[in-house]
Amino acid sequence: MMEDFFKVKSPAEVAELRHGITRVESETVPLAEAWGRVLAEAVVPGEDLPPFARSTMDGFAVQAASTFGASEGSPAYLEVLGSVAMGEVPDFTVGNGQAARISTGGMLPRGADAVVMIEHTAAVDDTMIEVYRSVAPGGHVIRAGEDYARDQVALPAGIRLRAQETGLLAALGNEEVTVYRRPLVGIISTGDEVVPISRRPGPGQIRDVNSYSLAAMVRACGGRPKTYGIVADNFDALSSTLTRAADECDMVLISGGSSVGVRDFTIEALSSLPDCRILVHGISISPGKPTILAMAGGKALWGLPGHITSAMVVFRVIVQPFIEHAAGLARPTAVRRLPARLTRNLASAQGRVDYVRVRLTEKNGELLAEPLLGKSGLINTLVRADGLVEIDVNAEGLDRDSLVMVRPV
Amino acid sequence: MMEDFFKVKSPAEVAELRHGITRVESETVPLAEAWGRVLAEAVVPGEDLPPFARSTMDGFAVQAASTFGASEGSPAYLEVLGSVAMGEVPDFTVGNGQAARISTGGMLPRGADAVVMIEHTAAVDDTMIEVYRSVAPGGHVIRAGEDYARDQVALPAGIRLRAQETGLLAALGNEEVTVYRRPLVGIISTGDEVVPISRRPGPGQIRDVNSYSLAAMVRACGGRPKTYGIVADNFDALSSTLTRAADECDMVLISGGSSVGVRDFTIEALSSLPDCRILVHGISISPGKPTILAMAGGKALWGLPGHITSAMVVFRVIVQPFIEHAAGLARPTAVRRLPARLTRNLASAQGRVDYVRVRLTEKNGELLAEPLLGKSGLINTLVRADGLVEIDVNAEGLDRDSLVMVRPV
Repeated sequence: MMEDFFKVKSPAEVAELRHGITRVESETVPLAEAWGRVLAEAVVPGEDLPPFARSTMDGFAVQAASTFGASEGSPAYLEVLGSVAMGEVPDFTVGNGQAARISTGGMLPRGADAVVMIEHTAAVDDTMIEVYRSVAPGGHVIRAGEDYARDQVALPAGIRLRAQETGLLAALGNEEVTVYRRPLVGIISTGDEVVPISRRPGPGQIRDVNSYSLAAMVRACGGRPKTYGIVADNFDALSSTLTRAADECDMVLISGGSSVGVRDFTIEALSSLPDCRILVHGISISPGKPTILAMAGGKALWGLPGHITSAMVVFRVIVQPFIEHAAGLARPTAVRRLPARLTRNLASAQGRVDYVRVRLTEKNGELLAEPLLGKSGLINTLVRADGLVEIDVNAEGLDRDSLVMVRPV
Repeated sequence: MMEDFFKVKSPAEVAELRHGITRVESETVPLAEAWGRVLAEAVVPGEDLPPFARSTMDGFAVQAASTFGASEGSPAYLEVLGSVAMGEVPDFTVGNGQAARISTGGMLPRGADAVVMIEHTAAVDDTMIEVYRSVAPGGHVIRAGEDYARDQVALPAGIRLRAQETGLLAALGNEEVTVYRRPLVGIISTGDEVVPISRRPGPGQIRDVNSYSLAAMVRACGGRPKTYGIVADNFDALSSTLTRAADECDMVLISGGSSVGVRDFTIEALSSLPDCRILVHGISISPGKPTILAMAGGKALWGLPGHITSAMVVFRVIVQPFIEHAAGLARPTAVRRLPARLTRNLASAQGRVDYVRVRLTEKNGELLAEPLLGKSGLINTLVRADGLVEIDVNAEGLDRDSLVMVRPV
């Protein structure tokens, strides 16, 4: 079909299409359950953090100028006014030539602008200390608002909350946090040859692997999978399940359809949805070329290849950024690739991006990437794989010992 | 205390102690919920995968020998016996000079040992094809058991299930899977100065940040956190909460106790537990030196520093491998470090391992690691950080432009 030919797109062209999908709405969750969720509103503290200047050391709160020039040979002598009790506002002012005992975390008394570490002092008597080292203004003190200032954005919307952001939200007193809902991703398996995993496959049949592997990948990138089971290879069955899934979910993955007939049903069923446009019919990657992307009502609806290997590569490389966009992430998760040396030559066709599964081993502190070449229907190459090596669209292959960047899987 | 002095240990010495803790028991979960869990029993298929030889291409099942020597100029002529219907056992045998139509995934008929791709054939008439290329025995065929052979270990116990292992379990028909229970990790906050996050901290007080950041890290490495709230700085209160937590949980983290007095309470409370031994009192790392590890009834009980920064470094570097061991992982998760260039000199003291927070940026395809130097009480350095750089125990520091390995946080 001429029309379809023009819908074969590069991975980069497909990636841009994610901006056409709608983000999920937000919800409020207790902070204790917020880890890993995507922040839906910027966090702007209503108070300074810390709320007052505090000491970072056990020692003496002083005016820094009182210590200028102090040394072992020529100590400064300071009058001790008393102690800053933890949990209390000091009721005295530290003047020039004066000091107050303070513990780590204690509130700096009025007048004081630095803390002398206890190690750099000695008691002369109950009311006098010697100081052996000068301290600069601000030394061993965290100023009010030095960590986070009130009314300034502390965390932007659209980031995924790690342990440290969770800690910051606690420090700012947020018992609840507004995050994006986790996108619900519908998964439909197609194919007359596909049987439920509880069933022993007959000749020419295979168990429904992709409902499980796709669901796991959806979870891994922060979505919630909803499986719709196995749908027979006919337009009516697929169309009715697809309509339901597109209605109930934020995105739909139709898995299967490696054969041309099933692909046609998928296209037909997608086309029959109201206001659905087929945007992509084929992506210049391998494995995973026969991938379909349609858009309806701001939702992405995918036709994925049936082989677990192809489906997994397409999911990682193509689908995941769409789920992350729907999930509210301001930018796709940075894929941190690991440099490794290739253990053998790899051939590749020009005009497409190839993804090769590799196993990583370490030798002399360097990572080696061993390509796992196997028939594409085999699961064991995926299970043995630690990552994927991308071979660029213009490369004819990669030489042994090349430095490659490995994307963990 | 002399006794304690000898309990200062290196990170490597502490890591070895994890073998002294007990692993959690196992439980059975539906496969759909198994992603990310740790396999508790080896998976040994009771059937071959695939269960029968199948074609990986659309084409003709043949005896490979029938095609030897075939070329465009001198094709082989084969008699077509019929078609292999999907989902059926072929009821004929393919002999020398014969062929049967077969689709991708179809079961190879008796006699056939290879598949000729349809592209390399042409129909002469209804019962005869020309073959233009020879195929080797096994060509375009997946043998029975080629992916996974029955009665051989397909997955060992002690691995974390990724999407691909989940897919394999589905392919083998496992509707349920036996995994280790997720370790329950108790978190106790100590310190008279610590207030619940719902409360506005008074002078010298701080909100209970660590209950939240530690809980998030426990979740991130596969455990379940159980928080016990804030316990006052006295032996009886800490001892009674600790007794309860050690009884209910698989591991306990006591957070806080940066001051010497609180550390003493922690040691006292730990020592008062039946059969509890203090194994570590101080680790030669920075931040995080004043860390305590005790062991009772096969459970690790930790006294962690109170600063969020120190607590987080100790958790990542020291505690996490203990949780993963308790969780049943056969080996700690491989920490994949990213190579990056340091943007400035870093000083370090010999005799301890330093961990410096860095922000990663990309420049000309290379990662730059910018150290985030800040007072250790500040949360913003952690929030801005993408990773940690380790400075070895024997190094006096690192020069600008050094290649460093960054551990993502």
